[in-house]
Amino acid sequence: MKDIYLDNSATTKVCPQAAEAVRRLLCETYANPSSLHAMGAAAERELSHARQTVAKVLGCNQREVFFTSGGTEANNLALFGAAAARKRLGNRIVTTRIEHPSVYEPALQLEKQGFEVVFLEPDETGNIPVQAVFEAITPDTVLVSMMLVNNETGVRLPVETAAKAIKRAGAPALLHCDAVQAFGKLPCKPASLGADLMTLSAHKIHGPKGTGALYIRRGVRIEPRTFGGSQEQGLRPGTEASALIAGFGAAVEALGTGSAFLEHTAQLKDRLYEKLRSIPGISFNSPADAVPYIVNLSVEGIRSETMLHHLAARGISVSSGSACSKGKHSRVLAAQRLADDRVDGALRISFSRENDTLDVDAFVEGVLDGMARLARRS
Amino acid sequence: MKDIYLDNSATTKVCPQAAEAVRRLLCETYANPSSLHAMGAAAERELSHARQTVAKVLGCNQREVFFTSGGTEANNLALFGAAAARKRLGNRIVTTRIEHPSVYEPALQLEKQGFEVVFLEPDETGNIPVQAVFEAITPDTVLVSMMLVNNETGVRLPVETAAKAIKRAGAPALLHCDAVQAFGKLPCKPASLGADLMTLSAHKIHGPKGTGALYIRRGVRIEPRTFGGSQEQGLRPGTEASALIAGFGAAVEALGTGSAFLEHTAQLKDRLYEKLRSIPGISFNSPADAVPYIVNLSVEGIRSETMLHHLAARGISVSSGSACSKGKHSRVLAAQRLADDRVDGALRISFSRENDTLDVDAFVEGVLDGMARLARRS
Repeated sequence: MKDIYLDNSATTKVCPQAAEAVRRLLCETYANPSSLHAMGAAAERELSHARQTVAKVLGCNQREVFFTSGGTEANNLALFGAAAARKRLGNRIVTTRIEHPSVYEPALQLEKQGFEVVFLEPDETGNIPVQAVFEAITPDTVLVSMMLVNNETGVRLPVETAAKAIKRAGAPALLHCDAVQAFGKLPCKPASLGADLMTLSAHKIHGPKGTGALYIRRGVRIEPRTFGGSQEQGLRPGTEASALIAGFGAAVEALGTGSAFLEHTAQLKDRLYEKLRSIPGISFNSPADAVPYIVNLSVEGIRSETMLHHLAARGISVSSGSACSKGKHSRVLAAQRLADDRVDGALRISFSRENDTLDVDAFVEGVLDGMARLARRS
Repeated sequence: MKDIYLDNSATTKVCPQAAEAVRRLLCETYANPSSLHAMGAAAERELSHARQTVAKVLGCNQREVFFTSGGTEANNLALFGAAAARKRLGNRIVTTRIEHPSVYEPALQLEKQGFEVVFLEPDETGNIPVQAVFEAITPDTVLVSMMLVNNETGVRLPVETAAKAIKRAGAPALLHCDAVQAFGKLPCKPASLGADLMTLSAHKIHGPKGTGALYIRRGVRIEPRTFGGSQEQGLRPGTEASALIAGFGAAVEALGTGSAFLEHTAQLKDRLYEKLRSIPGISFNSPADAVPYIVNLSVEGIRSETMLHHLAARGISVSSGSACSKGKHSRVLAAQRLADDRVDGALRISFSRENDTLDVDAFVEGVLDGMARLARRS
């Protein structure tokens, strides 16, 4: 049975170029990049090359790229590090109700620490209203954290509006953007978006799990959270995961253009909509203007887990929401004020450049078959 | 020119078994271990296998093993997490002056936060005196952090004594042991040592850089430092670095017996001592009873960096101390009250199972040649 993998927002298959870079660093250029000998210098050159590669895509200087163990660590570092560095300038933090748990949970922690945290709510389409952004950001706001693309629905958030609102309010706020679901797909240069901090992850773009980066605009200081070495300019000490970082760089180099990716996945999304739009009992939870590579839909009367297992038995992998939530009720869809049974029946299909129309057809067939069999049972 | 790699305490070459496990997880079992579909479950089984492998060597339950991005993160989590969890029970923390920076720097941070932190000093051989351990640990001590083997000199620290002293004082202290330089080489079962928390790193035992683990004894609660997912029982969220973790497990499985390792490296150490002992201008900084796989020595009148570059030109990699310190003056040797010029001329040679007597001979020849050439110049 062929694996039909439609869960690319959870993670992606590592591309051959990244796998080869990992192998090379594990088995050949294996020295510690901080070591002063020639072998250490060779490893450091590999790190530097990967850093330049990431910096080029972001349109930034390589000294603005700090490697971390992944998106979760980068998001935690951004939120806690920025809040600690700016707390003397104000007490307000603005974020949204639909952030990834690795932003949302730190925001709740900061609220416990005494910050006033405003969670912007999405409207019924799932979008964050622009007017609400302007209203929320006040002159005592020290941090705004807004993702670029939501991981469950594919909604594109108004990050540029947040940058404008910070300027208009004259706020001392840093703008953090979790770009994990956008990097390599949509344009996400921090300077164009107005972001001071930006989170990236390797494993959503066919790189290895366990590495990512935090972009920090030159001149912006945030507090470190880890101590004990001078790696990553002292902000993120610890022996660099050199093989993963080289794999991250290679995965970035292997990316096609964002526009080709969007065009390819738009074709898949169109086909999916075409085939399922008119089926009674299926509703789309992603708004029409969401990115093409993430589609969220609900099947009436069939719980996500039930359908997910039915599909898995046919070799089809999709998810019920964020993998990090392990099947818990979706906060993101609930914030969109969808009815409970629609939230309970949500499926997320997420495409990579490796998917084709046959994958879409197999998914559609699997869902229709599931609706026929599972509805009868329940 | 053959690479002669004698810097195995900085990092090791990844063994073929670990490299193959990494490849398999990158390219085949690549799903997110938190995903609910069958491919996710397959990745989760790989994680679980690696966890069991590590747990077996520690003689503990797999639920006591928490994977991190490496030793530095595990040490930071142990210190900050334990101090935060226990702060209501007392205000004193006991550690040593010769800990790795990833314990030492967090301890300094905790001192800034208001904890009374006692740094035990080594005697002139480099050993931590047992009596001082008993004196330092008082009934209001909430955390003791002591490494098992020092990374610069190979000194074995009296961790069992710390456990006894905690009992004798009736202190509410957790005992943390940074076992990064001991794991896979010396017996280091937490239960035998009396440790509640223990730090491990994969890349010192021919596993990949970017993964490690914190052992936490069942029933011990420490505060998390990262938020946003339920991975690692919620203590260390973020998509698991599954390929690295599988590589870690495979490296552990490929370990020979500790006694064979010690016997092999003792032969190398003996040869090194034999050849250099009688050379005027060479002094050994490691005590006689240090572990055999780390040897610290000084060459009179020649700075570490100078000798290091001379050796590197001959294809020989050693270090001047901890790679994480990037050549800064050694706090560890200074604490031993060695004269400044001896600290400035220190070299660390660290063996792996892959080294042989030819490597030792090449190092000896390189040093003697360096002494002849470099002394004349300076």
